[in-house]
Amino acid sequence: MSGPEVLVFDVFGTVVDWYSGIKDEVDALDCGLDGHEIALAWRAGYQPAMETVRSGGEWVKLDVLHRRILDGVLAERGRDDIDEATRTHLTRAWHRLPAWPDSVEGIHRLAARFTVCPLSNGNLSLLTHMAKRAGLHWDCVLSAEVFRAYKPDAATYLGVADVFDLPPASVMMVACHPEDLDAAASHGLPCAYVDRPLEFGPGAALERAPRPSGTLEVASMTELANALGC
Amino acid sequence: MSGPEVLVFDVFGTVVDWYSGIKDEVDALDCGLDGHEIALAWRAGYQPAMETVRSGGEWVKLDVLHRRILDGVLAERGRDDIDEATRTHLTRAWHRLPAWPDSVEGIHRLAARFTVCPLSNGNLSLLTHMAKRAGLHWDCVLSAEVFRAYKPDAATYLGVADVFDLPPASVMMVACHPEDLDAAASHGLPCAYVDRPLEFGPGAALERAPRPSGTLEVASMTELANALGC
Repeated sequence: MSGPEVLVFDVFGTVVDWYSGIKDEVDALDCGLDGHEIALAWRAGYQPAMETVRSGGEWVKLDVLHRRILDGVLAERGRDDIDEATRTHLTRAWHRLPAWPDSVEGIHRLAARFTVCPLSNGNLSLLTHMAKRAGLHWDCVLSAEVFRAYKPDAATYLGVADVFDLPPASVMMVACHPEDLDAAASHGLPCAYVDRPLEFGPGAALERAPRPSGTLEVASMTELANALGC
Repeated sequence: MSGPEVLVFDVFGTVVDWYSGIKDEVDALDCGLDGHEIALAWRAGYQPAMETVRSGGEWVKLDVLHRRILDGVLAERGRDDIDEATRTHLTRAWHRLPAWPDSVEGIHRLAARFTVCPLSNGNLSLLTHMAKRAGLHWDCVLSAEVFRAYKPDAATYLGVADVFDLPPASVMMVACHPEDLDAAASHGLPCAYVDRPLEFGPGAALERAPRPSGTLEVASMTELANALGC
């Protein structure tokens, strides 16, 4: 049995800390919005927004969905006074999310032995800007935008195997979300789970579902690099 | 007037030396094939092969086209004895092309100020393997495979602008082929021409067509970095 040749990474929560990134940028605006509350409400709109595309709606980039969700979050709070420039600025905060402290080193070490790519629902420019700013190393940026389908659509996981002309067993999915790993595993990808207990902030009680059997379980990207001999 | 934010690079000939890469790998087989002749014949089949896709044929990756062209080149020479493993190995030689001596340093310097991406007809795995092996730095790998269209289709040049939500004037096309620059310029992209007199080998008399007006003309990627203040 040979191991994986390509590692693909979920990004929001797994590689970067969306909660702190969004909370801090909202708080920095100092305009009466609670960063903690806005970050959680914005992220809560993420799956429903993608579902409009998954269920046959027109393809749109995550940037567009992020903006639609934000508009809804602000409307619910009666904050029609938040102007266009501020909404655009905030939506781009998703391009500026900080990496978890272990991500840059861990992924850099993994790249010495594997081809490393994000496989994220974030659009290409979002992932590119984020990586450049955070110093993340990717060999190739893969995204829902490339496959015109959002995870957990099979077209994303199997799309990576097709890009590299590999069987799914040679592509490992790395994520902190069991649902992402379940979908990947159902299409034959081996899985690694990275525990991210702070994904929803320091106070959140986080209960993760069980992972697919055979999943490699680690607490950081550097631990993943250790586990895979890098 | 602000300058470009994103630089996209033609790859075969512009960033890497396909002639030497293919010639050397064919000669190394030591099976009676002339590396010089095969390299030129293989590349001569490139535009006609892509034309089958451009004119409405089914989308296929460049790896598949490269293999079809090779099969034709070998058949014309009566070399049906060349086995499957050798053909597969040779087709993958396009993933192993060496960078021109100035490419790695020049593109690395340019990346400090610009977002740098290939915009090549090569498929994603080809470009990813090539970059990893040669030490080329890309912020994001863009390819005909992402846009499901081969240059000079407008969908490629305008596709980059769409990925980055930029006007075409903010995306500069860098290439050694005037036809590529003509197409890019016709869609509003500013252009840089990199002179590559050795593209077809040391003995070839190479006459390049004039470049679009306003094109920045340089002799190497490091000179491009100098010209753009990097």
